[in-house]
Amino acid sequence: MSAEDAAALIPHGATIGMSGFTGSGYPKAVPVALAARAEAEHAQGRPFRVRVLTGASTGPELDGALARADGIEFRLPYNSDPILRERINRGEMDYVDMHLSQVAPMVWEGLYGELDFAVVEISGITPGGQLIPSSSVGNNKTWLDRADKIILEVNRWQSESLEGMHDIYYGTRLPPHRVPIPLIAPDQRIGEPHFHVDHSKVVAIIETDAADRNAPFSKPDGSAQAIAEHILEFLAHEVKKGRLPKALLPLQSGVGNVPNAVMAGLINAPFEPMTAFTEVIQDGMLDMIDAGKLRMASATAFSLSPERAHDLNARADHYRTKLILRPQEISNHPELVRRLGVIAMNGLIEADIYGNVNSTHVMGSRIQNGIGGSGDFARNAFLSIFMTPSTAKGGKISAIVPMAAHVDHISQDVQVIVTEQGLADLRGLAPRKRAETIIRNCAHPAYRPMLEDYFARSISGSWGKHAPHLLPEALSWHQRFIETGSMLEAQINAAASA
Amino acid sequence: MSAEDAAALIPHGATIGMSGFTGSGYPKAVPVALAARAEAEHAQGRPFRVRVLTGASTGPELDGALARADGIEFRLPYNSDPILRERINRGEMDYVDMHLSQVAPMVWEGLYGELDFAVVEISGITPGGQLIPSSSVGNNKTWLDRADKIILEVNRWQSESLEGMHDIYYGTRLPPHRVPIPLIAPDQRIGEPHFHVDHSKVVAIIETDAADRNAPFSKPDGSAQAIAEHILEFLAHEVKKGRLPKALLPLQSGVGNVPNAVMAGLINAPFEPMTAFTEVIQDGMLDMIDAGKLRMASATAFSLSPERAHDLNARADHYRTKLILRPQEISNHPELVRRLGVIAMNGLIEADIYGNVNSTHVMGSRIQNGIGGSGDFARNAFLSIFMTPSTAKGGKISAIVPMAAHVDHISQDVQVIVTEQGLADLRGLAPRKRAETIIRNCAHPAYRPMLEDYFARSISGSWGKHAPHLLPEALSWHQRFIETGSMLEAQINAAASA
Repeated sequence: MSAEDAAALIPHGATIGMSGFTGSGYPKAVPVALAARAEAEHAQGRPFRVRVLTGASTGPELDGALARADGIEFRLPYNSDPILRERINRGEMDYVDMHLSQVAPMVWEGLYGELDFAVVEISGITPGGQLIPSSSVGNNKTWLDRADKIILEVNRWQSESLEGMHDIYYGTRLPPHRVPIPLIAPDQRIGEPHFHVDHSKVVAIIETDAADRNAPFSKPDGSAQAIAEHILEFLAHEVKKGRLPKALLPLQSGVGNVPNAVMAGLINAPFEPMTAFTEVIQDGMLDMIDAGKLRMASATAFSLSPERAHDLNARADHYRTKLILRPQEISNHPELVRRLGVIAMNGLIEADIYGNVNSTHVMGSRIQNGIGGSGDFARNAFLSIFMTPSTAKGGKISAIVPMAAHVDHISQDVQVIVTEQGLADLRGLAPRKRAETIIRNCAHPAYRPMLEDYFARSISGSWGKHAPHLLPEALSWHQRFIETGSMLEAQINAAASA
Repeated sequence: MSAEDAAALIPHGATIGMSGFTGSGYPKAVPVALAARAEAEHAQGRPFRVRVLTGASTGPELDGALARADGIEFRLPYNSDPILRERINRGEMDYVDMHLSQVAPMVWEGLYGELDFAVVEISGITPGGQLIPSSSVGNNKTWLDRADKIILEVNRWQSESLEGMHDIYYGTRLPPHRVPIPLIAPDQRIGEPHFHVDHSKVVAIIETDAADRNAPFSKPDGSAQAIAEHILEFLAHEVKKGRLPKALLPLQSGVGNVPNAVMAGLINAPFEPMTAFTEVIQDGMLDMIDAGKLRMASATAFSLSPERAHDLNARADHYRTKLILRPQEISNHPELVRRLGVIAMNGLIEADIYGNVNSTHVMGSRIQNGIGGSGDFARNAFLSIFMTPSTAKGGKISAIVPMAAHVDHISQDVQVIVTEQGLADLRGLAPRKRAETIIRNCAHPAYRPMLEDYFARSISGSWGKHAPHLLPEALSWHQRFIETGSMLEAQINAAASA
């Protein structure tokens, strides 16, 4: 069927579970056709908006196209599309930012109503009629199981060799019928390579031949390399102390240039054979596999550069025994993250002096992307590391602030903070000692005296002195940024510009 | 041995794991003797302070006595003693507020250094030399396993019939050796009734005959009853919708009069046979068992009124098959909380308009008690309910504020908020809809217009409109309370007092 004919089946107001996680495995034709339909309907003065549930972020052909057409009324659980982000932050649509492990169980629970459609990209159909997943698994099993009607996009661009790389676990239930998930090592397979599908629900099959949104990675800059070096030194120290095994524990890592720099550093580190139990497989992990340092990686999606995506497709036979893609309710499951003892490494927008972390809301009100899996991993990790350059926007924003303007990760879930300035090991420290350590080790020199001043005056002036704060100025840095474009105090800012 | 002789074994600076959870099962003699020793040493101009790790809160003979003597340098993971609280909030000692499920694994990991002593109350010793736990289990297994030296207090006051009520699981490990915890129902036993102990480490045994800190419960007031009614109506609605089974799912409930009111209400509700998978067994749960509504309760400790404690000791044979006490790393384990699909009901200090919850820091800086197990339960619960009267301090404090001055539970982990005013079902709602619902359903009428005004002005004036905030006044209610003793605006406050 054509994408246009398939899109015509979807009515205004429909709730649609779409495939896609971090720019891979999302449907590339039907959402574009749906956006065109929304625009046509709007031109006729008729409403047309749908509710879109995905795995995580997708690509411009999905979130971008539908957002441009004002075709999305409600979106969950994660987004990174700039056009959609603008709509969300102008208050024009509803966005629910969720722990990625919880989407599937909450949809089963019925919290988001009936799922009218599943629109799922696959890489093929087996002779027996089962579906071969593509470059992400995400919530596709749940969409296929729960949707009334199913639209499939078979993407020829995806390598045939992906078949066998997936592990779709069919053992999840709603309570009181849940049982232990029988996974005790990252390389263990507990499911099946294909999705089951009720053929009577399939209302359309579309063929596509389109690449995933694979963005090039820039070379790690000095800041990313410095962060990576601090982390590597810390991990070596933990191994020496006997708190980590010599092969480390399964690695989880967020997406971006800093994590890629850490992976690059691990190639030359004395830890092996490592494993990964993570959300997303980036270039750095494939490099580690090629170097023989990473034995295998378990995730729910790829997020590769175009070159590495090509390479993966070309050499999928080589990688297939070393990579497993699972549903995100398994890749991110708290039970498994805690059992395996994952080393979690995630980014942040800002941390406050006590180590509360804001991963999502710039200046407390503008959502950047979403919490993603960081909460699934950070709370349950054996070691929870957050990493960031100490400043953003050319120094106008400090990543270390007096009080976080929004909290995604409470201080209990933040054990280590790393910037290019240094590493703060916060484990076992009470709040005031956490503050001293973070300010000393992580803050940028331009902001360190301001933080020391705030903390010193808080200790004498705070109402309670367990975690001292001066409420009238706790959020003043953020307000100064909103008003002046910089968190730096006016005279410092002027001096810096002079 | 005398408690004094035992206390004399403990040097200044020692790290001590002590028994005790919610006022039950804590050592009653050695800490008092240790406090006397600290006072004597201080009188001689010598330092004497120790590091105290427990299960959770204890009693006046432990935290109270040691705090009065300035004998505690470092304390984790929870406290509710008023004297100790004052010391913490004057900044005179270090206090680390922790997820209660994480204490045992982090001590095994070595994050709090060597454990020099365990001081553990037991109710008896078996002929084979194993230890019979008393009225709380807490972290005692870990203290006994990890401490260099062990001091036991055998408390005659504890009923002999407690024997057999405990289930001590010996299957926990550090990664990469962790395996699934084989518990799939609250009434399942997976461990042993006694603690193992290496007799060569036992340096003292003291006999005591002292009651637990069992505080009387006041009758639920109108506010607590109204909260209970809202929750019961909601649970009935969820059963009707098919989202909860008719026997509900295992109940978890915080400690206090509001939870006790909910338990009282459940006696007359049409749900049965219920179970509980919780931290603490209060009077209300025993009442539910007596009424035949609660089939069994699993916890790590008792927190009973003196009458009910007497009753439990007198009728322990009756209750023993219906109650299980486990180590807190099991009672609160995220793996089990999520698998069982617990209905979590916890209190709070304040919630903001988006449903971020502050459970610990009054006005953002003064710690009240601690996060306890609320994070273990709320994030992993099938249904996460937070409940509170809508005001405190005779109306001078609103439990619903523009922005929480500290965050323990992020909005993703807060599904339902209940006050005596009503219930806000926040599941599936985006931030602005959450705010409308919380303000409309939960805020006290004295504060509702102030919240509506803040929210309306935020929608127009906020930098980002995903979760609108006006930073210069987001924490102004707290500052007004610090300055004036009331969160009400001056003119309203004056009118109210007039």
